[in-house]
Amino acid sequence: MLGPKRTFAWRLLHTTSRLRYCASCRVETVASVSHEVSAKQQLFITDPISPGSIFFLPNGVKIFNKLVKFMKLQQQNKYGFQEVMTPLIYRKSLWEQSGHWENYKEDMFRVEGQDLDKEEYGLKPMNCPGHCVVFKRFARSYSELPLRFSDFSALHRNEASGALTGLTRVRKFHQDDGHIFCTPDQVESEITKSLELVDLCYSKIFLLGPNNSPTQYSLRLSTRPEHYIGDSKVWDLAEDVLRGILEKSNKEWAVNEGDGAFYGPKIDVLLKDHNGKSHQVATIQLDFNLPERFDLKFKDKDNTYKRPIMIHRAVFGSLERFMAMLIDSNGGKWPFWLNPHQCMVIPLKTNNKEMVEKAKEITKILRGENVPIDQPVKMNTLHFNVDIDDRAEPVGYRIKDAIMRKYSYLIMVGAKEIETGKFAVRTQDSRELSHLTVDEIFSTFAELEQNYM
Amino acid sequence: MLGPKRTFAWRLLHTTSRLRYCASCRVETVASVSHEVSAKQQLFITDPISPGSIFFLPNGVKIFNKLVKFMKLQQQNKYGFQEVMTPLIYRKSLWEQSGHWENYKEDMFRVEGQDLDKEEYGLKPMNCPGHCVVFKRFARSYSELPLRFSDFSALHRNEASGALTGLTRVRKFHQDDGHIFCTPDQVESEITKSLELVDLCYSKIFLLGPNNSPTQYSLRLSTRPEHYIGDSKVWDLAEDVLRGILEKSNKEWAVNEGDGAFYGPKIDVLLKDHNGKSHQVATIQLDFNLPERFDLKFKDKDNTYKRPIMIHRAVFGSLERFMAMLIDSNGGKWPFWLNPHQCMVIPLKTNNKEMVEKAKEITKILRGENVPIDQPVKMNTLHFNVDIDDRAEPVGYRIKDAIMRKYSYLIMVGAKEIETGKFAVRTQDSRELSHLTVDEIFSTFAELEQNYM
Repeated sequence: MLGPKRTFAWRLLHTTSRLRYCASCRVETVASVSHEVSAKQQLFITDPISPGSIFFLPNGVKIFNKLVKFMKLQQQNKYGFQEVMTPLIYRKSLWEQSGHWENYKEDMFRVEGQDLDKEEYGLKPMNCPGHCVVFKRFARSYSELPLRFSDFSALHRNEASGALTGLTRVRKFHQDDGHIFCTPDQVESEITKSLELVDLCYSKIFLLGPNNSPTQYSLRLSTRPEHYIGDSKVWDLAEDVLRGILEKSNKEWAVNEGDGAFYGPKIDVLLKDHNGKSHQVATIQLDFNLPERFDLKFKDKDNTYKRPIMIHRAVFGSLERFMAMLIDSNGGKWPFWLNPHQCMVIPLKTNNKEMVEKAKEITKILRGENVPIDQPVKMNTLHFNVDIDDRAEPVGYRIKDAIMRKYSYLIMVGAKEIETGKFAVRTQDSRELSHLTVDEIFSTFAELEQNYM
Repeated sequence: MLGPKRTFAWRLLHTTSRLRYCASCRVETVASVSHEVSAKQQLFITDPISPGSIFFLPNGVKIFNKLVKFMKLQQQNKYGFQEVMTPLIYRKSLWEQSGHWENYKEDMFRVEGQDLDKEEYGLKPMNCPGHCVVFKRFARSYSELPLRFSDFSALHRNEASGALTGLTRVRKFHQDDGHIFCTPDQVESEITKSLELVDLCYSKIFLLGPNNSPTQYSLRLSTRPEHYIGDSKVWDLAEDVLRGILEKSNKEWAVNEGDGAFYGPKIDVLLKDHNGKSHQVATIQLDFNLPERFDLKFKDKDNTYKRPIMIHRAVFGSLERFMAMLIDSNGGKWPFWLNPHQCMVIPLKTNNKEMVEKAKEITKILRGENVPIDQPVKMNTLHFNVDIDDRAEPVGYRIKDAIMRKYSYLIMVGAKEIETGKFAVRTQDSRELSHLTVDEIFSTFAELEQNYM
């Protein structure tokens, strides 16, 4: 399916560092996602009716939304990003201005109206030009910088159909995308903060090393190539800043001399998965080109207009691919906060009405669904992914089944439990039982989720 | 810009009840959105580079996300919906199967790869065919029904460029879309519950009547047209059920005899805005057609395969248009929970370092941004939209400015406040001051937001 022209363009894109903004999702395929996990847990499906686009099933959506929620909280409430939502289709002229039409056309989908006007558009493969449009719309002052936009829009790239695989090589995907518009002397702190967020993610929250150890990753600086745009002094300054940051980083790092994109130097983050295999995830790219092409300006303290530097950065890269890496690493055994199957409630005897009713009541409370009929579910309330298994099967069978389906917790509801108001709780890994009230269980779950455990 | 062929197809769509699934976003333009409000509050912009697609600015995204969050909570934790995320582009053959290519083509955008394959797709104007694909993928049993999918995907319809207006007539929009697959005898309770959610929204939460009174709305039943598909007995049954529900509804209602779509009867919700003008918002449509076209089946109790009925329903309709109606009704004065400007913190003397520092500290606490540098922002924590005005301007000027910018609350930080730990709080409407600790303010805000006030 990969025609010779396509192959050529493809190689070009991957070897000459042309327009590869936000390229973090273009990477080697991760160790093949366990389709078994997805099938068992009903996370997603694909279908030839839309090759390379994922149909996320309810359980997959739960994980996806949690990842997005995590990242938005960090971006917006720790790192000063503001979320924008930008269009998906833009007139050809935007892509001509950005340079994508010239350099990236074969990887883009063309869109046209089917009425008489037949207007021509490109379906966006990246958010950056849209963010330039937002930046440019308002008179910008130095006091607004650094201005940080984040965007979780759907992106489309026309990957060759033969290369499409599960969540890792797709045509439709979402990035935890961010663009920072800043002055040259803000570059250092912005890059430092971006790397801080990378470290938070990979060393503290998403432990992709063997046996859930912190993810091992290294940094790679790519510097000025032979052909470049922009002022060589700005390049030198920027590269010095990046080198300085890497020196202080306490991380393994290396330089790929002359391997930067023509529009700016960059730092890529390479992580090692639990099998020791290397993947590029996060990327931080300086860009002297798009601000030039879109004639972006801000008014400086001295009342003159200056060109901002643009930084493209992503931490997860593609959400889809990141999910694939998580599945590959955990084999479907999700930490509680990400688990679409957080808890199973099991009445010991399913022919005992009281036990079944109590089990239903507990399920409703933990799902946060005990709401009066004429009232709304309140904003900012907690809702755990809790199911009930009251099938007429032996209790041993139902416990085994819940463990096999990787529920984080199991709650047993028997006569003694109802009498004391304390319910037997166990994890999927240990037969050991704790006896807790429903309130205590709720608080435990709340704390686990709050702390990303 | 509206060619004769286009006009014809357009009229056809709007007069003959052909394929108009989820048509709730196709309505009369609401009283023109106050562009002034959007400009003042920086909610969104439009740009000829993507006609009819909204660029939501950070403040607009905040409102948009809150509306979606509200609706997801009700759908998922009260009405049994499960969220799915489905592709945006589908091969032409899907649209041929659904009938859109034949009946709706001119309103759809065509998408094609620009590589050698040049595969042809349609950009989705509706979610229903995608949901049929998900339904069909698995062997479905009666025990799974009613199966309720919700989806907040971006939708595109090629509205004539001359008709595009702000948020109300757009080409890219989002619906609070839901499809219910059910048996004929589940129709009654599903429709009843859908109308219950409609009533919750318009009578309790979004008060669009004059002076924030509950929204007045009426219901309109459209019945079997001359040309129809499906079993006339099922039609009769369904119409009887719908009539029965309307009779019990205590709402003003009417019947448009013979005005149903060929694929099923429907109930539209017509609300009156604060000016007494009528708008169609929510819609609930029965569909006997798509299950037929996609050959959807479930295994019934008697082990035979049966065809489910599909219900299309939306409560907000288009999120964009609903936002326009809110703005039109509130003139930019948002209730606290939706306000992108929830609170302004004002140090009385901006040359007093202690006051400024205290004001910053309060801002940080209310924004939920008092997080140690090496820790993540926790999941499920509260974050209010709080700003600080420490510009070197007289305090009276800054208070007036915050009121003009429609901040819900103002917090004044002076020497006495710092000494007592109780800060002077006022609303935008009243000069009356309360004196509250930061904890008390936080709790007040939490309660307001939780209760949609």
